[in-house]
Amino acid sequence: MKYGFAKRVNHMQSSAVRDILKVVNRGDVISFAGGLPDENLFPVEEVREAFNKALDTDAKALQYGETEGVPALRSKLTERMADKGIHRMPENVLITSGSQQAIDLFARVMFNPGDIVLTENPTYLAAIQVFQSYEVNIVPVDADNDGMTKEDLETKIQQLKPKCIYIVPTYSNPDGKVWSLERRKELLRLAEKYHTIVFEDDPYGDIKFDEAETVAPLASLDENKYVVYTSTFSKTVVPAMRTGWITGPYQIIRMMAQAKQATDLHTNSLTQHALVKLLEDFDLDAHIRTLQRTYKERMHVMKDIFDRADDIDIRYHEPKGGMFFWVSMPEYVNTKALLDDAVDNGVAFVPGAPFYVNQPAQNTMRLNFTNAEPELIEEGMKRLVEVMNSAPVQK
Amino acid sequence: MKYGFAKRVNHMQSSAVRDILKVVNRGDVISFAGGLPDENLFPVEEVREAFNKALDTDAKALQYGETEGVPALRSKLTERMADKGIHRMPENVLITSGSQQAIDLFARVMFNPGDIVLTENPTYLAAIQVFQSYEVNIVPVDADNDGMTKEDLETKIQQLKPKCIYIVPTYSNPDGKVWSLERRKELLRLAEKYHTIVFEDDPYGDIKFDEAETVAPLASLDENKYVVYTSTFSKTVVPAMRTGWITGPYQIIRMMAQAKQATDLHTNSLTQHALVKLLEDFDLDAHIRTLQRTYKERMHVMKDIFDRADDIDIRYHEPKGGMFFWVSMPEYVNTKALLDDAVDNGVAFVPGAPFYVNQPAQNTMRLNFTNAEPELIEEGMKRLVEVMNSAPVQK
Repeated sequence: MKYGFAKRVNHMQSSAVRDILKVVNRGDVISFAGGLPDENLFPVEEVREAFNKALDTDAKALQYGETEGVPALRSKLTERMADKGIHRMPENVLITSGSQQAIDLFARVMFNPGDIVLTENPTYLAAIQVFQSYEVNIVPVDADNDGMTKEDLETKIQQLKPKCIYIVPTYSNPDGKVWSLERRKELLRLAEKYHTIVFEDDPYGDIKFDEAETVAPLASLDENKYVVYTSTFSKTVVPAMRTGWITGPYQIIRMMAQAKQATDLHTNSLTQHALVKLLEDFDLDAHIRTLQRTYKERMHVMKDIFDRADDIDIRYHEPKGGMFFWVSMPEYVNTKALLDDAVDNGVAFVPGAPFYVNQPAQNTMRLNFTNAEPELIEEGMKRLVEVMNSAPVQK
Repeated sequence: MKYGFAKRVNHMQSSAVRDILKVVNRGDVISFAGGLPDENLFPVEEVREAFNKALDTDAKALQYGETEGVPALRSKLTERMADKGIHRMPENVLITSGSQQAIDLFARVMFNPGDIVLTENPTYLAAIQVFQSYEVNIVPVDADNDGMTKEDLETKIQQLKPKCIYIVPTYSNPDGKVWSLERRKELLRLAEKYHTIVFEDDPYGDIKFDEAETVAPLASLDENKYVVYTSTFSKTVVPAMRTGWITGPYQIIRMMAQAKQATDLHTNSLTQHALVKLLEDFDLDAHIRTLQRTYKERMHVMKDIFDRADDIDIRYHEPKGGMFFWVSMPEYVNTKALLDDAVDNGVAFVPGAPFYVNQPAQNTMRLNFTNAEPELIEEGMKRLVEVMNSAPVQK
């Protein structure tokens, strides 16, 4: 039988990364493809303790809960955000099933087909997926290493009247970029001038490699009028808990909560109660510092090998945080074709093309450095450099 | 600042039940309003054990997982469904964040604005919420106590060419109805004849009061062509885990998985691993029999009081399972107005109007009997009968 689907499924596409992950999950392939934190660093015993405590307290922790989230967790999150200069009330916080759901719910309550969203290019591909499924027109803005350039941004805001500007300004996925403070302020000034919402997606802000570096989230520079800010516990605690949050103007958060009610009633509340206990008992900030040190070391292992590989023609920036290296090869290289050779040689990466809004650069790739231990990174990079050395010319 | 929302928010409405719950969560009000299982019956220690075992096994249980769900859980579910005569392969099962998400994802991939869905009337109000948010036209079909009537169903299928027929055929919410086998077969015959999808929502099928009664799910009568079937662990294990599932034709399940990928990547996988352990170690069916006995006793406490209350003019059927009594009062009574008096008198219910697709019967109410112990039900019913006795005439 042939089933009649909604028109919107024509705008839905499967994630290139998740499809690749299925291929490269062979035991003999060293994978730099996923966006995975290292499971060996997961605070398993502390998570166990937290669940046990949540289950000790009250069987009500297992009952249906509020759509907005467990109140104690929303309070804890306002405290943690205040440490970053983001001062919000708990009622301005909505707990979501990962920050992915925050993007989806935001899109659901904000976008009509044909609305314009401005983004970086490349940008987070699962955000592109969401926006496309709501039939939004995604328009990239010119940028350099400090963020979107003022001229192109203002021109496009004036001409296109976007509903929203979506950015990953801190240690971004895929290209590890950090916006300068000046560019952040400039973006906010334009958001205020043209009454445009800024969606600040910040899953990686905690994974910084210079302990002294303080990056002001855009939300910390805004009086809760123009910036919607989302983050997650997936990179700092564990991904399997699927718990993120979003904060922003009350009207938007309230509307998203209403949409969430019909979507899934509420996020797993046993997990939310466990996270409250975890935040009470566990020094998450010390754990984050361990992650920072460990991931920085691995980033350097990867970088050193590239730095020494004089015989391959590549460009890359040293990531200041996050989980990814973004590499450009000569224009005649097609990294999608190269991936087949790489997998044959026992190493995997994600070709960069799916991260582009349009006119993808076929010669780019994203490499994750957080999931593998240094020795494995060395071996994988040896294999990768071999493959890069014999890169076939683009067909 | 005024924010420009999507047009679809005009079709979104907050759940009347959840809004009422906020009001009646006062300690001195005995609430029959929620759709809550009894937290005193939650298998807390077994859940604890299950989480501990899931955390013992492998830190990978805490890593990102497959959108479709944890494979071992999908297998377990096919076994459990086979016991009900529903024979499906694990690849035809998608794990969702509660069965609410199954309804939402189905709507997302199937419905264009203006599509028709046939439903019972009254029906599950959060399904109405979902369908409305996708700008679907919901058309009720005439029914008696055995299910939709053949004539009206066939006429409406012929005339309106619905995309889907949504039903809660077993111990339904709100009215506790059970479709007869004959009506189930008749519906399927029409679905096949007119190539129409049937969405079988079955959260309550396990909560039956006659142990000998076997009700064939529609999915068990279908060769996985026309019926999409969803259920949940929320009523039989605990709601806080937010874990449900859906099974149906592979094309539909695959499309829903693709939609889910952009929506929330995957459902909390630590919880899924814990459910696998729970199903391995815990006799869930014995636990379900305990729930059946306990809830049946409470239903009878409620029923006996109504049976004895000769001085109030009400109509009701004895529920054969599920969690709710559905009560009709004389037409001059407005139960929404009555609720204020009831809360003043220390008891709460849900007015029936929000469960109707159109032309709500203002004189109906839904009473939950699973959440309170018998003594509390008696006291609450005493208060309720008092209020019913002095029911004001509808304004």
